[in-house]
Amino acid sequence: MADTLSHKLIRAHLVGGEMVPGQEIALRMDQALLQDILGTLVMLELDAMGLKRVHTTPSVQYIDHTLLQPDNINADAHLFLKSACERLGVWYSGPGNGISHPVHMERFGVPGQSLVGCDSHTTAAGALGMLAIGAGGIEVAMAMAGEPLYLPMPEVIGVRLEGELPDWVSAKDVILELLRRHGVAGARNCILEYYGPGLATLDAMDRHVLANMGTEMGATASVFPSDEVTRDFLRARDRGADWQPLTADAGCRYDRDEHIDLAALEPLIALPSSPDKVVPVAQVAGEPLHQAYIGSSGNPGYRDFAVVAEVVKGRRVSSEVSLDINPSTRQVLSALIAEGHLAALVEAGARLHQPGCNGCIGMGQAPAAGRNSLRTVPRNFPGRSGTREDSVFLCSPETAAASALTGTITDPRTLAMPYPHVREPARMTLSDDWFVPPLPPERARHVSLLATDNTPPLPVLNPPPDRIEVPILLKTGDNVSTDDIMPAGARVLPLWSNVHASAEHTFEALAPDYVARARERGDAGHAIIGGSNYGQGSSRENAALVPRLLGLQVVIAKSIARIHWQNLPCFGVLPLTFADPTDYDRIEQGQTLAIDDLTRQLAAGRRIQATLDGAPLELVHELSPRQVAILTAGGVINWLRERGISSTKESVS
Amino acid sequence: MADTLSHKLIRAHLVGGEMVPGQEIALRMDQALLQDILGTLVMLELDAMGLKRVHTTPSVQYIDHTLLQPDNINADAHLFLKSACERLGVWYSGPGNGISHPVHMERFGVPGQSLVGCDSHTTAAGALGMLAIGAGGIEVAMAMAGEPLYLPMPEVIGVRLEGELPDWVSAKDVILELLRRHGVAGARNCILEYYGPGLATLDAMDRHVLANMGTEMGATASVFPSDEVTRDFLRARDRGADWQPLTADAGCRYDRDEHIDLAALEPLIALPSSPDKVVPVAQVAGEPLHQAYIGSSGNPGYRDFAVVAEVVKGRRVSSEVSLDINPSTRQVLSALIAEGHLAALVEAGARLHQPGCNGCIGMGQAPAAGRNSLRTVPRNFPGRSGTREDSVFLCSPETAAASALTGTITDPRTLAMPYPHVREPARMTLSDDWFVPPLPPERARHVSLLATDNTPPLPVLNPPPDRIEVPILLKTGDNVSTDDIMPAGARVLPLWSNVHASAEHTFEALAPDYVARARERGDAGHAIIGGSNYGQGSSRENAALVPRLLGLQVVIAKSIARIHWQNLPCFGVLPLTFADPTDYDRIEQGQTLAIDDLTRQLAAGRRIQATLDGAPLELVHELSPRQVAILTAGGVINWLRERGISSTKESVS
Repeated sequence: MADTLSHKLIRAHLVGGEMVPGQEIALRMDQALLQDILGTLVMLELDAMGLKRVHTTPSVQYIDHTLLQPDNINADAHLFLKSACERLGVWYSGPGNGISHPVHMERFGVPGQSLVGCDSHTTAAGALGMLAIGAGGIEVAMAMAGEPLYLPMPEVIGVRLEGELPDWVSAKDVILELLRRHGVAGARNCILEYYGPGLATLDAMDRHVLANMGTEMGATASVFPSDEVTRDFLRARDRGADWQPLTADAGCRYDRDEHIDLAALEPLIALPSSPDKVVPVAQVAGEPLHQAYIGSSGNPGYRDFAVVAEVVKGRRVSSEVSLDINPSTRQVLSALIAEGHLAALVEAGARLHQPGCNGCIGMGQAPAAGRNSLRTVPRNFPGRSGTREDSVFLCSPETAAASALTGTITDPRTLAMPYPHVREPARMTLSDDWFVPPLPPERARHVSLLATDNTPPLPVLNPPPDRIEVPILLKTGDNVSTDDIMPAGARVLPLWSNVHASAEHTFEALAPDYVARARERGDAGHAIIGGSNYGQGSSRENAALVPRLLGLQVVIAKSIARIHWQNLPCFGVLPLTFADPTDYDRIEQGQTLAIDDLTRQLAAGRRIQATLDGAPLELVHELSPRQVAILTAGGVINWLRERGISSTKESVS
Repeated sequence: MADTLSHKLIRAHLVGGEMVPGQEIALRMDQALLQDILGTLVMLELDAMGLKRVHTTPSVQYIDHTLLQPDNINADAHLFLKSACERLGVWYSGPGNGISHPVHMERFGVPGQSLVGCDSHTTAAGALGMLAIGAGGIEVAMAMAGEPLYLPMPEVIGVRLEGELPDWVSAKDVILELLRRHGVAGARNCILEYYGPGLATLDAMDRHVLANMGTEMGATASVFPSDEVTRDFLRARDRGADWQPLTADAGCRYDRDEHIDLAALEPLIALPSSPDKVVPVAQVAGEPLHQAYIGSSGNPGYRDFAVVAEVVKGRRVSSEVSLDINPSTRQVLSALIAEGHLAALVEAGARLHQPGCNGCIGMGQAPAAGRNSLRTVPRNFPGRSGTREDSVFLCSPETAAASALTGTITDPRTLAMPYPHVREPARMTLSDDWFVPPLPPERARHVSLLATDNTPPLPVLNPPPDRIEVPILLKTGDNVSTDDIMPAGARVLPLWSNVHASAEHTFEALAPDYVARARERGDAGHAIIGGSNYGQGSSRENAALVPRLLGLQVVIAKSIARIHWQNLPCFGVLPLTFADPTDYDRIEQGQTLAIDDLTRQLAAGRRIQATLDGAPLELVHELSPRQVAILTAGGVINWLRERGISSTKESVS
């Protein structure tokens, strides 16, 4: 049978389950990616598991979020993570090296391999023909310990690209068009597989833009073929030997079909404050601008900076606008210097920042309150910029650059200049000296973890009771993101390694009294009601773990975003959906939810009979038997302890 | 009579008083410099005065401290300051343009002119033959309003430089040698005037290093001749027309004489946590290193970065060390790119940060707790790095670079490589497009201040009572800095524009219970006892204003640093010293200080008769009649209101 590339990649890594959409499959993971703000918890989890050495090769820890260092907490965390890397056989990519996703692609990406990462944008490596999946930290930890990664078999959406992008339109506009069509839940439990003649016109970093932001549609992964474009990308980095051609079989069938005529696209922009509020730039042209922000894993390529440089070269950025340049990686920064683009940016009045995630996740560069900020980043959830009353738009580098020049939101096609066609240099400097490689095992075992007050051991969780009887402490609307549950930003991110300290900030903006009310209930517990696509966005597992610590026992929603849905049982929280979605409307905060015989009901089938203030309420669970076992054990760590961890064995490598 | 250059400069600007050391003189100020964290208060003060347009030309507002932007407060402040500039006829140097002191020298420095700035390192412009003085914001505001700047006539210390610096020894080592000899109060109420044949070997930015850090010795100013070196500096920036030769008369006599043989110097380092704890680098060589920080107004020259680049070029910085590069200005960054130095730094593994003050004042790049950080900055007061338990050393770029390579504190002379002699390029790019020039008056008057919740109007202060009877709420040791009184750092700096919000942090590290105890007393007031050199360091006027708001009425110390001593009466706080310094030893916290007939006593002479728990205590005041009038009015704003402000007249320019 003619296979999609997604099916080929899955089959090549399948170690359990059947490839039937919705059924749980188990996948062998070749590589693992950790970033710093979630990596700290992963390292603590690996420590709690007693792991001696990781099994994924390579496993790489990136320092890319905690770069502001307003006090010692960030630098202390770098030392903790470096010591954990040395102890466990993990590569360390230190501060200044850049954002995990592009750096990983540059140095470690290998077509055909699988990659799991504790960051939702791990999917970006799909640009190279990898099977790259974001997951909660505890699932990444299990994969690093040699366990499979479990997930529901996704459907595959085939996205056929035709034609060639017009001048002033680029990869970001393609993914914005998909978001416009299908919204932030449009690819939930799906893989977006790109193919077609239009692909040849998108280089590897253009593909990264699409694969990265597939996450914004809820996709499990995005998959591109490995072709000449992929080969050129690797060769430019002296890594041609890692290339192999990979493609879907001719005549393969997709579960769903999508078609984009690249030539028909125009510059698009996502309005505040959701990535799917997409309109043509022309529709909001003329709005005053305060900030234009270039960078992040949403537009990390050399091209994405060089095109901005070419637009502003020899001109002066509007004095009303802060044009913030955030080089994605040391490699990109180095190339921008060599090619004269950095000089052009600096001399045109741009601000230059250190390579890293930075303002994309509210680590600096927060805009003034209520002022328009145009950003090439992947997300514009409310307040994510660091400014509570923010007004963040998502757009291409072309649109951001044109607008920075004029001082108002500007369709770049209206600039009176020829479109600067820029290409990556044929040779991109890349040095292994920029990384700290894993220590050999005989040296690694002598390294101690440099723990601090801000990296306390993980709390021990109790299994859930067999009879749940809890109040509805919070009822939310649709598309609540994990940013809403556990805020990021300069104030809170440094605390993520410490679940007790970060607990204070749970649901801070959405429900400022949630923490106090949850604490009042304490271990007696509570439930949360969500709308559609509850827990979308970032993969942060603390959005499950921390509410659990505060007493959360059950989440009931119209639908739950995949990664968050997987994270909840990993920490002993039961994720449910309504059998009848209209029941959502009749539930009120303060009502009492009761579920009897939980273990028996979970084992018996998908339906869960509950009561709401005594009246019957029918709910649904989608958990696999493995997930049920984890849930009833009180989470992964308890479950691993009960069954004896296969992963405590030393790695053979 | 043969004149020192200092005397010539003072005489050229003298509008009142006699040039007798210790007597108050009044000086006309040509130019004014504001930075952002103190500029906000200055703008509020100008607003409270009702000023329409500033009289100093140019007046320049720099955005160089509030660059982290963890939330909207910083960006809101930028908009506030920009609107104030437009309204009042002030140049605006936006975020990304760099540190006030080097930028001011590059673009606005003119030999022979006077400059006042609300930053203690304003003195740096003395490198160009300017009379450049740091002052409290309210005194800068008065100067901008056309009033003279008042200060005690300083003594002049003549520093004769001979010989030439050996390889691997640079300007920073010269000023560290002076700090080693004379300590942090060694030039209090003095001007350091440099002369001699050794001068020719120090370029303008080398001189900046010395003039900048003269402040660390308590100097009122540092003065250099304007010579060929000065001319070359200006010519390289297309500003040769601003040059004029200036020098001391042959045979002039100095109040004190100092002599340095440059050839005899070796690499020096200031140990934690005071700029005068200076020893040879060799003495601490081999200590482990965690961070090497390059940048700040303490070593802002092109050379100071280029020499680091030459040392690390083609090598790899130790993986134990974060080498943090903070370009001082857009101009320096631009030149470092053009000359290939930035590429060398980035490829050797350095971290690149935005141009600005940054970590020098704890705005990012805080080191891990207890780990050694080598910095080219001017100050290492405890906790100023942002890390409470910090371990910060001050040294030259050469020493920092050598240590970053080896991973331990290293005397750069022990590197097995030839010394890289680098010189500034003959042409340094400088564009007026990088600034926003003042608006013409007819447009300026239509601009409104963009005030925010974080820029509330200044509080109205009550005059001090004529009978003071207050408890000693706090007794400190020697060399308490204004950093100790009003902390900087990423947490507190953004609040400085809001005296009510920043009040919470007063004496935070030194006396965590001070604020609560002061609030308990409220308007009933309190006194503080200081040791020697009380209030050293930064010129921040909020170190006077905020304690005043908390009820401070009197400071008694063995000695008080000049700027802080001037700031106190400007906000209605009485600064006194002990007639018998040994009285310091018998005073205890909690005792009651009483002073009767304050107005009469202040007018009658220097001596103030007080009692301590009823026992006589003789104190001394050094205030001029003008300062007494300001004090008894309850501060400058009240005083100006009483006498009618000459400065409310429109500027003629």
